[in-house]
Amino acid sequence: MLLTPAVYHLIDLALEEDIGPGDITTRTTIAPEVMGEAHIRAKAELIVAGLPVAQAVFARLDGAVEFIPKVQDGELVTAKTILATVTGPANLLLLGERVALNFLMRLSGIATWTRRFVMAVQPHPARIVDTRKTMPGWRVLEKYAVRLGGGANHRFGLFDGILIKDNHIAAAGGIIPAIERACAGAPHTLKIEVEVQDLAGLQEAIAAGADIVLLDNMDEATLAQAVQLAAGRVRLEASGGMSLDRVARVAATGVDFISVGALTHSAPAVDIHMKIVRTWEAEAAPMPPSA
Amino acid sequence: MLLTPAVYHLIDLALEEDIGPGDITTRTTIAPEVMGEAHIRAKAELIVAGLPVAQAVFARLDGAVEFIPKVQDGELVTAKTILATVTGPANLLLLGERVALNFLMRLSGIATWTRRFVMAVQPHPARIVDTRKTMPGWRVLEKYAVRLGGGANHRFGLFDGILIKDNHIAAAGGIIPAIERACAGAPHTLKIEVEVQDLAGLQEAIAAGADIVLLDNMDEATLAQAVQLAAGRVRLEASGGMSLDRVARVAATGVDFISVGALTHSAPAVDIHMKIVRTWEAEAAPMPPSA
Amino acid sequence: MLLTPAVYHLIDLALEEDIGPGDITTRTTIAPEVMGEAHIRAKAELIVAGLPVAQAVFARLDGAVEFIPKVQDGELVTAKTILATVTGPANLLLLGERVALNFLMRLSGIATWTRRFVMAVQPHPARIVDTRKTMPGWRVLEKYAVRLGGGANHRFGLFDGILIKDNHIAAAGGIIPAIERACAGAPHTLKIEVEVQDLAGLQEAIAAGADIVLLDNMDEATLAQAVQLAAGRVRLEASGGMSLDRVARVAATGVDFISVGALTHSAPAVDIHMKIVRTWEAEAAPMPPSA
Amino acid sequence: MLLTPAVYHLIDLALEEDIGPGDITTRTTIAPEVMGEAHIRAKAELIVAGLPVAQAVFARLDGAVEFIPKVQDGELVTAKTILATVTGPANLLLLGERVALNFLMRLSGIATWTRRFVMAVQPHPARIVDTRKTMPGWRVLEKYAVRLGGGANHRFGLFDGILIKDNHIAAAGGIIPAIERACAGAPHTLKIEVEVQDLAGLQEAIAAGADIVLLDNMDEATLAQAVQLAAGRVRLEASGGMSLDRVARVAATGVDFISVGALTHSAPAVDIHMKIVRTWEAEAAPMPPSA
Amino acid sequence: MLLTPAVYHLIDLALEEDIGPGDITTRTTIAPEVMGEAHIRAKAELIVAGLPVAQAVFARLDGAVEFIPKVQDGELVTAKTILATVTGPANLLLLGERVALNFLMRLSGIATWTRRFVMAVQPHPARIVDTRKTMPGWRVLEKYAVRLGGGANHRFGLFDGILIKDNHIAAAGGIIPAIERACAGAPHTLKIEVEVQDLAGLQEAIAAGADIVLLDNMDEATLAQAVQLAAGRVRLEASGGMSLDRVARVAATGVDFISVGALTHSAPAVDIHMKIVRTWEAEAAPMPPSA
Amino acid sequence: MLLTPAVYHLIDLALEEDIGPGDITTRTTIAPEVMGEAHIRAKAELIVAGLPVAQAVFARLDGAVEFIPKVQDGELVTAKTILATVTGPANLLLLGERVALNFLMRLSGIATWTRRFVMAVQPHPARIVDTRKTMPGWRVLEKYAVRLGGGANHRFGLFDGILIKDNHIAAAGGIIPAIERACAGAPHTLKIEVEVQDLAGLQEAIAAGADIVLLDNMDEATLAQAVQLAAGRVRLEASGGMSLDRVARVAATGVDFISVGALTHSAPAVDIHMKIVRTWEAEAAPMPPSA
Repeated sequence: MLLTPAVYHLIDLALEEDIGPGDITTRTTIAPEVMGEAHIRAKAELIVAGLPVAQAVFARLDGAVEFIPKVQDGELVTAKTILATVTGPANLLLLGERVALNFLMRLSGIATWTRRFVMAVQPHPARIVDTRKTMPGWRVLEKYAVRLGGGANHRFGLFDGILIKDNHIAAAGGIIPAIERACAGAPHTLKIEVEVQDLAGLQEAIAAGADIVLLDNMDEATLAQAVQLAAGRVRLEASGGMSLDRVARVAATGVDFISVGALTHSAPAVDIHMKIVRTWEAEAAPMPPSA
Repeated sequence: MLLTPAVYHLIDLALEEDIGPGDITTRTTIAPEVMGEAHIRAKAELIVAGLPVAQAVFARLDGAVEFIPKVQDGELVTAKTILATVTGPANLLLLGERVALNFLMRLSGIATWTRRFVMAVQPHPARIVDTRKTMPGWRVLEKYAVRLGGGANHRFGLFDGILIKDNHIAAAGGIIPAIERACAGAPHTLKIEVEVQDLAGLQEAIAAGADIVLLDNMDEATLAQAVQLAAGRVRLEASGGMSLDRVARVAATGVDFISVGALTHSAPAVDIHMKIVRTWEAEAAPMPPSA
Repeated sequence: MLLTPAVYHLIDLALEEDIGPGDITTRTTIAPEVMGEAHIRAKAELIVAGLPVAQAVFARLDGAVEFIPKVQDGELVTAKTILATVTGPANLLLLGERVALNFLMRLSGIATWTRRFVMAVQPHPARIVDTRKTMPGWRVLEKYAVRLGGGANHRFGLFDGILIKDNHIAAAGGIIPAIERACAGAPHTLKIEVEVQDLAGLQEAIAAGADIVLLDNMDEATLAQAVQLAAGRVRLEASGGMSLDRVARVAATGVDFISVGALTHSAPAVDIHMKIVRTWEAEAAPMPPSA
Repeated sequence: MLLTPAVYHLIDLALEEDIGPGDITTRTTIAPEVMGEAHIRAKAELIVAGLPVAQAVFARLDGAVEFIPKVQDGELVTAKTILATVTGPANLLLLGERVALNFLMRLSGIATWTRRFVMAVQPHPARIVDTRKTMPGWRVLEKYAVRLGGGANHRFGLFDGILIKDNHIAAAGGIIPAIERACAGAPHTLKIEVEVQDLAGLQEAIAAGADIVLLDNMDEATLAQAVQLAAGRVRLEASGGMSLDRVARVAATGVDFISVGALTHSAPAVDIHMKIVRTWEAEAAPMPPSA
Repeated sequence: MLLTPAVYHLIDLALEEDIGPGDITTRTTIAPEVMGEAHIRAKAELIVAGLPVAQAVFARLDGAVEFIPKVQDGELVTAKTILATVTGPANLLLLGERVALNFLMRLSGIATWTRRFVMAVQPHPARIVDTRKTMPGWRVLEKYAVRLGGGANHRFGLFDGILIKDNHIAAAGGIIPAIERACAGAPHTLKIEVEVQDLAGLQEAIAAGADIVLLDNMDEATLAQAVQLAAGRVRLEASGGMSLDRVARVAATGVDFISVGALTHSAPAVDIHMKIVRTWEAEAAPMPPSA
Repeated sequence: MLLTPAVYHLIDLALEEDIGPGDITTRTTIAPEVMGEAHIRAKAELIVAGLPVAQAVFARLDGAVEFIPKVQDGELVTAKTILATVTGPANLLLLGERVALNFLMRLSGIATWTRRFVMAVQPHPARIVDTRKTMPGWRVLEKYAVRLGGGANHRFGLFDGILIKDNHIAAAGGIIPAIERACAGAPHTLKIEVEVQDLAGLQEAIAAGADIVLLDNMDEATLAQAVQLAAGRVRLEASGGMSLDRVARVAATGVDFISVGALTHSAPAVDIHMKIVRTWEAEAAPMPPSA
């Protein structure tokens, strides 16, 4: 279920901040009985992401707006492709337009951007994974967009994965006690991942029984040594400063995962428009020229 | 008041999505009585934006975390500058870290990015203004960041400005009836802005009594003609496809405002870190090793 | 969209406070399978306002209640007119009755009361406008009712209009710096309104470039002088102590707007009743005699 | 506890609708370091009601605003009495002003208006009681104001009192089965009140064991007969069309309670102002010129 | 209306805590187009309670899940009885399963457990009533389950019944002033109940005019004396330490009510399962493989 | 952080349902200036759980209530031990009493009940783990209580652990494709757990690469065979029908984990009281006799 209660909260925040006490331009210039049909259209090649969110935005407006997706989330479409048609009272189309597009442009932006990283590491087996560097309030949506772009998800939050970092190790008195405590206190369904800064750290983590080791901010040469040293005993995740230019070289070292904060914190939006393509007048309804 | 109820809702969504049922790594590896002091530090030159939000994030955690800003929002700081110190129980520092940084990295990213546009148009008088292409849920924060970067705000939403677009004009039967209706129905405190596609539209809008005209997707030559044609009778806003490369040329045409969607929909994050610089043990408190 | 999320919050607060843990009288005395049809009826001549809200109240009750408006919001109806019929399980009709009527009585009261002010100033061109003296939580609804009564809306809140008052002028160091700062810092879509206490203030405001001047608590003679002095260079709003007796005399002075707090803070309710006109028994449904 | 969670929801709705994305006038004209002291003052004789709500409004603004009541809720004060002083950042004083006053003006209006009804029935023992005809969202506050004005509360909602009306009697098959069912199904802590339209109904209700009888829309002569007929066996509540002119005559009939919808649905607001009486500059704080 | 806004809040909390950012097992192993039909089945004899809640849980999931109750709340069913069928996308069935069952198992547990107490006191007229010792957040649901089990409800909360305890009496200066104050200050629809520790207290309470007396923690002999002493002048409620073993003996003393905290604070859950009994593939829908 | 936003929502629901529009008994019988000190005391031996929640309940009441824990969550205390003292206005003590106790009685009940299971399996290494059969809305609290009783947590919800059940296997076309899909689609930080019904299933799961196998509803003899068969290649969890009587025998089979739904769905409450031990009068405060 993409549309969790948290996503609905975000949609509501978005509609409230855009609509506030009402759309003054539309209320004063367009009669309530004007109906319209609009097309949502990609302005460039992109991976579509967010159609169910856009649909939910219009459904939230309490009017009989019909939203018909013409493609599916996850599809790669060319410029000018119609992504969806939206039909209903013109004032509701204009009311939801900006919010729906803002969701689509951001999520499709992430999916499209992720795909570039994923393509860049082919044919290496390394998986491109996301991080917790997501827009506050957007995590479930952004991680969904990463998947649509071909990336894989790292843990969602602090609760569904153990990732022991420097601070934890220092406070616990070393890698071994830190791992032991995590095993004792965490649900048995979770693996243990440990972050290390150098090869000595990697050796210690393997000895201590880690399942996964995060190699923090290492250059490609060191990463390659790490892969040799680990020899398959743990899975390896390279992290830190991963740009589009660099990921292929990192993937070539043989690491299992490359985590890329930029997938979500710096993805540029892609351009998506909505245009009303025809209008007509509804038969007078008993409901008043409300607001 | 930056921290409106809507901003608190967003902060709560962000904490809920990151914390969920609890920080398993920290709970299992770090004793609750460990106290720490952390530094939040810029990793590159940037305009600071979001310190009150970061402070509110830690205040939301219900523990005695002390957050002391070392610079002010709006300052241009160099790489390595300490932006704030955060002191309190180590588990709370780690609990709020990612959410606080995600806010700071995004908002400082927007402010820093906006500043580049603002610098680019100097010494022309044109003001760089934002749009409604903001991240859903974030508008009040992003528009605040734009101001810190030297940009100006356009209307916040559908409710605090009249912007008559093609669809409105078509449905109203022309520019003149559209403007008349807007004047009759909207609060008298609002100006009338009309979007036009060409110079004929501009002339009609001026004749109809518009206060401001938005020139949509015109090239620099046409914009310059528009400035001449308007001759100061209306204020002019250039919009559509405004990149960092191009804004100086647009500003040179003499328009009053340049609205740039990319300020908010495509600003890259700037890098900001938090490090715990020392830890110590609190005297045992009567509160339990909660979660 | 009249039914903004904020309006739904208010409806929910209203239902929660009236229903609490349940309608004990109905639950214990009326069998769940009793169906009913009710009429909502005006008890006096009035302008109808609030039918979409009343409809939303019943829709919120999660049962198949059918609400059919018989007139439209904004209509002037005579006593005994049926405003709507409501059909469904009798216990749901009784559950929503009081809340729905409370909305209708208040909003129709404001519309009807506003109309008296609007009629009173005819044939002068002055527009009757509302203020921010609305019931907390009700602003979007009350301003809607004002429009239905023929009044115009002033700004909705602190965010969609600039109104510089004494305190702002004092703190800014005079009218000129206050206006300059407002122009520099506010979205370019907003006009500048300044409140003055006397004719000297009016002159200064005009000189400083205000778009609108609010004339605070002036008698009719002074208002007339203000109109002469302004000579059309700014629009003039008379405010303070506007009763039904007085507004015609104020309108005669030639001011453009008369703002009346009493439209919303002291409008008497109008009387509207709901009566169940027939009942019958539903076929047994599989759902239990819930609560 | 007057400030229930529902009251806080209402306060938040009120602040959100007034503040929206920010107070543009104040933000652009008043520097954030300006501090002020303001006086909240009655403009007419009134019963004070709502000071804790006004205080909570300012406390909600997240700044160090100090609100000091100078009188107590429930006091009768003369015109010009200072009700409270408010001290803090000038922008926060202006931010909370209107919402705080709107609460005070409405609640003090109800208390003052209720007192007129209470005084009118003296020296008769009849108690003036309120109804459920309150502003949706406001019930706990309005019933509190009624008490401050000397009135008594009827049930708060559908859940804390049994009031069997015509519809219930018809659906239950008569007064006797209706009362029996209510006794069997409701908590034993509640009395049984039955509404009747005439003296025959009263006799039947007494025979059926009602504790209280509501006499609906009867004239004074009939009410007097009802009192005689009841002879103390049940308590009597007169209801319907109770104006200030009439209540003394109704009280003279000897009924125990007179319920008056107008206490809450048509109470005029009383006038209360807030003025900043002095300003000064705070020492520069580390917090930014936020919004 | 069982499904009050508060109940929906609880349902939402429940879904959020179980679903969080998504059902990883189902998302990764079951294709979105798989449809299923499931049976909800009792594993032991029980009184059914909570079907409308379970139905609302699935309705909350935003998919076309059809929930068809096969029995009614309040029915006594044997082991293996099908309580409801649920049909829809398999991933939604699995998403709502646990939450729906947790509600059903707890509420049916309370109803079934209550019935044992109710049966135990037959043929005595004493009614088994609940208390305020309910699970926080669940009161309206748990009191509903008590009614389905044949028990009666005591007051729902602090607001719909007067229950004067030791602390109130001490602070008020005795039983008489406490009762007088309660009569003067509370809605006239409420009876007065007083808690006493011994027979002297009972006598005083009767003299002071109490309607009901709660006999706290008395043994059966004392309770029998209390019944004699009261001689029908007040209704008597026995409370404190009421186990299933003991209630018959307490009922035999002749008290009117026996309040039992264990009905809600210690009811064991009853076992109810959900099984998918068949699956099939839906025709491809235009909606994406969301999450 | 035990007190997540979701926990605060639950606390607010609990206070709202108990307080509603106000505590009528206390408001009418106890003067607002009466202060009190109360003791919260165990009535039986128990493991304390929930003190931070109880403290938060009183903190939510907006008055200066001081809550001082006298023991720590997780301590085993004897009957009559004082768990906390609570000091403040008497009306606030009575307002929070029931809600605070309801949390403490339930959570301490679970901790105490869990401890019995944990003691029962000693000295076997098997860990007692909880399930998702928790009270809707309470999961984070109940799992915390389980830990305080010495139990371990299984996954919190559908999002932080992979547990492949029959339905998943059937829909995926077998254990192997199900496990492969889960590995491909889930975050790499999660282990794979598979539920099996018999030893053949166990063998298949091991072959397919499962990390953990849940043995569903097997008798002790079969469990022992499973342990032998697995020979340490996977971790084993026994589940289904685990009573206090039986767990020692199950632990003796050598399984790693025993999951017990009854820990949370059928834990009896433990008895905890609050008594006001002294009262005094506050000096008159400027705040009114609110509600």
